[in-house]
Amino acid sequence: MRDTATMVNGFDMSSVDALDPELRTIVERRASLLGPAYKLFYRNPVRIVRGEGVHLYDADGQAYLDAYNNVPSVGHCHPRVVEAIARQAATLNTHTRYASELILDYAERLLGTYPASIGNVMFTCTGSEAVDLALRIARFCTGADGVVITANAYHGVTAAAAEISPSLGPAVPLGRAVWTVAAPGPGDTHDSLAARVRTAIADMNRHGVRLAAFIADTLFSSDGIRPEPAGFLRPVADAVRAAGGLFIADEVQPGFGRTGEAMWGFQRHGAEPDLAVMGKPMGNGMPIAGVAARPEILQEFGNKIRYFNTFGGNSVCVAAAAAVLDVIETEGLRENARVVGGYLRDVLEGIAKDEPRIGAVRACGLYAAVDFVRPGDGEPDGDAALRVVNGLRERRVLISATGPDGSSLKIRPPLPFSRPDVDQLADALTATLRTR
Amino acid sequence: MRDTATMVNGFDMSSVDALDPELRTIVERRASLLGPAYKLFYRNPVRIVRGEGVHLYDADGQAYLDAYNNVPSVGHCHPRVVEAIARQAATLNTHTRYASELILDYAERLLGTYPASIGNVMFTCTGSEAVDLALRIARFCTGADGVVITANAYHGVTAAAAEISPSLGPAVPLGRAVWTVAAPGPGDTHDSLAARVRTAIADMNRHGVRLAAFIADTLFSSDGIRPEPAGFLRPVADAVRAAGGLFIADEVQPGFGRTGEAMWGFQRHGAEPDLAVMGKPMGNGMPIAGVAARPEILQEFGNKIRYFNTFGGNSVCVAAAAAVLDVIETEGLRENARVVGGYLRDVLEGIAKDEPRIGAVRACGLYAAVDFVRPGDGEPDGDAALRVVNGLRERRVLISATGPDGSSLKIRPPLPFSRPDVDQLADALTATLRTR
Repeated sequence: MRDTATMVNGFDMSSVDALDPELRTIVERRASLLGPAYKLFYRNPVRIVRGEGVHLYDADGQAYLDAYNNVPSVGHCHPRVVEAIARQAATLNTHTRYASELILDYAERLLGTYPASIGNVMFTCTGSEAVDLALRIARFCTGADGVVITANAYHGVTAAAAEISPSLGPAVPLGRAVWTVAAPGPGDTHDSLAARVRTAIADMNRHGVRLAAFIADTLFSSDGIRPEPAGFLRPVADAVRAAGGLFIADEVQPGFGRTGEAMWGFQRHGAEPDLAVMGKPMGNGMPIAGVAARPEILQEFGNKIRYFNTFGGNSVCVAAAAAVLDVIETEGLRENARVVGGYLRDVLEGIAKDEPRIGAVRACGLYAAVDFVRPGDGEPDGDAALRVVNGLRERRVLISATGPDGSSLKIRPPLPFSRPDVDQLADALTATLRTR
Repeated sequence: MRDTATMVNGFDMSSVDALDPELRTIVERRASLLGPAYKLFYRNPVRIVRGEGVHLYDADGQAYLDAYNNVPSVGHCHPRVVEAIARQAATLNTHTRYASELILDYAERLLGTYPASIGNVMFTCTGSEAVDLALRIARFCTGADGVVITANAYHGVTAAAAEISPSLGPAVPLGRAVWTVAAPGPGDTHDSLAARVRTAIADMNRHGVRLAAFIADTLFSSDGIRPEPAGFLRPVADAVRAAGGLFIADEVQPGFGRTGEAMWGFQRHGAEPDLAVMGKPMGNGMPIAGVAARPEILQEFGNKIRYFNTFGGNSVCVAAAAAVLDVIETEGLRENARVVGGYLRDVLEGIAKDEPRIGAVRACGLYAAVDFVRPGDGEPDGDAALRVVNGLRERRVLISATGPDGSSLKIRPPLPFSRPDVDQLADALTATLRTR
């Protein structure tokens, strides 16, 4: 089921003839204009024309419950964010080489959500650019090159970020200075990941490579979502620093309250990063991302190296990002992620209890994974997960799949997701499981 | 005058005490929040709060004539673009994995401005990301690693783009597989650059490195703006292809009608690229950029490699970009760049005629360079150019400087720049030259 670009839940162009004629025309036109690198979701792609809150609407006016998109994190087309974008776009949209208080007010608020040790922030447009910049900073700061990552990590699509993203598949080689460790998994204790990282660093050193950084998505999204036991990243950070490297927390997915327990994923672990990378939900869909840093790490880099990102921290994207912080606070979305996320986990565990095809449920806030396995031998079953993803799509509930085998449902809705939304998702899941 | 990060026209933090108290507070707060990598323009930074057309306004309501910013290419806060952004932000802002005609309609229009050989486009958020992607494609497609660039090129700030950007200064090493050639200059004939590129490729091959690509800004902006004699890029493209490499046209600055003579800089040269990189003016300040490509080059890359840029080609940025094409067409901005650009060149040449400190004027459309030299020996005089840039800023006309010595004024206004705007710029320049 996985195509050669190893994308989970990608539409396969060889089945284009099975689509309804109008959609088929769009899909073929798309292939001819955008080329083969662009993949659509689902066996029967969705044609979306409008969004509002936790719903997307297709060209026929049908509503889809969005249980997938973490980018429009405060809800599709949130009026407060839309208003901020429209107002700022009509007033000024410029870069960071003129003095402006807009970006400073935002930077101050954003840094206020971090531990006191994190005192600076630099803005980019995408999480990939933020990861790329964090790598540049870490390598400059340490004078070293080596990076340790988890086995199915995803950190982005620039050349440097792709080199530390094994989940992009075998056609994208890892960098020569990149070492992988097994992701956190069943049976792991508090120190298991740290022990694997120490072993990887020792092997790296044996090959004459010194450690620049360990980087991890603090929820291990592409490794199948691995939140427990919270705390295991703290000894990892200690091991990394003992080897002279930096601990980079990739908060592109866990950040901005997704876990419910904290604003940032590393906080669940009692660990403090040297650099933290943010992205996706930061501007509710506007291209803004960034690197938060301990100031002493940026000092020499910033003095010697000119970094200017034309659109990074531009006025409109910053206005959107400030409105996102407003909404997270005034609507209590972090608390909602905790409470509704807990309910989601309970409901999924209830479904899993009587379902031999489900091996495990893992969840943290509004981010849940449901592992599908072959009932006979318990092996990961990516085809089963994919059938469920497509079955939910036919019931107009949008999710996807993740993990090294694509065998885990990936449930990651906008943060205003409610208990009735969970119930709708659960009903659709139950109905789908009944027929497949 | 050039700081260690070799930024032309950067504010020097050691002179922060000289600023008025309110501005000083902002500048110090900025350094403390954003860190030392963020540089401001001018000895006396400008505090901008509003933009409209070719004007920016400071906190005291003073108007500045913008003769620098090419990003708000159709004018600051153009109502048609603002309206498109506001409308789309309120309707839908999503990624490219749902079927949508919005991005296809735009892609089709955009590709319609290219030669027929360029049939695909991929979207990113920044020019840096587009350059980075073009390098990934070129290296995948050729199986080679080597890149030839000009001596003071600038192509971006991702790790891979910075490796081909010598203008970032000595603290940013060029890649080991990167060879530089002297930029086009006085005395060059139609084949001079091609001859230098052939020599570089031969030397590269002698070192066991094969050519993946030659990449150049088709106006050679950071090399001091080198438009003439138009045509010299054609034999370069031939030499590059003969060596098995790809010709990548960096259109981030020349593109979207800036040259007046054509939509794309390579068209002035009668050359066709294999890949073209777009950015800055594409969305009038919204983060959208892209790579246009010959389809056969993308074929294997796209089939084997998953490329997904979360914000790349998102609905709001595409709506802004479509409005930009509308405005360029309906307001005849390319023609305006040709006509007003010609007038700008004439006016600058008139000023240069009686001014021994000016060595040369080069211009192409609404992009002009004025070289400052020491009257005694004709050596480049970066300090003189910088004094003029700051003198114009005090007269509320915004430009900057460029070139390997920072000795060329960089005049690059939004495309609706008018003859009276040129006159105002000329008056301010004359007045500045009189006092310095």
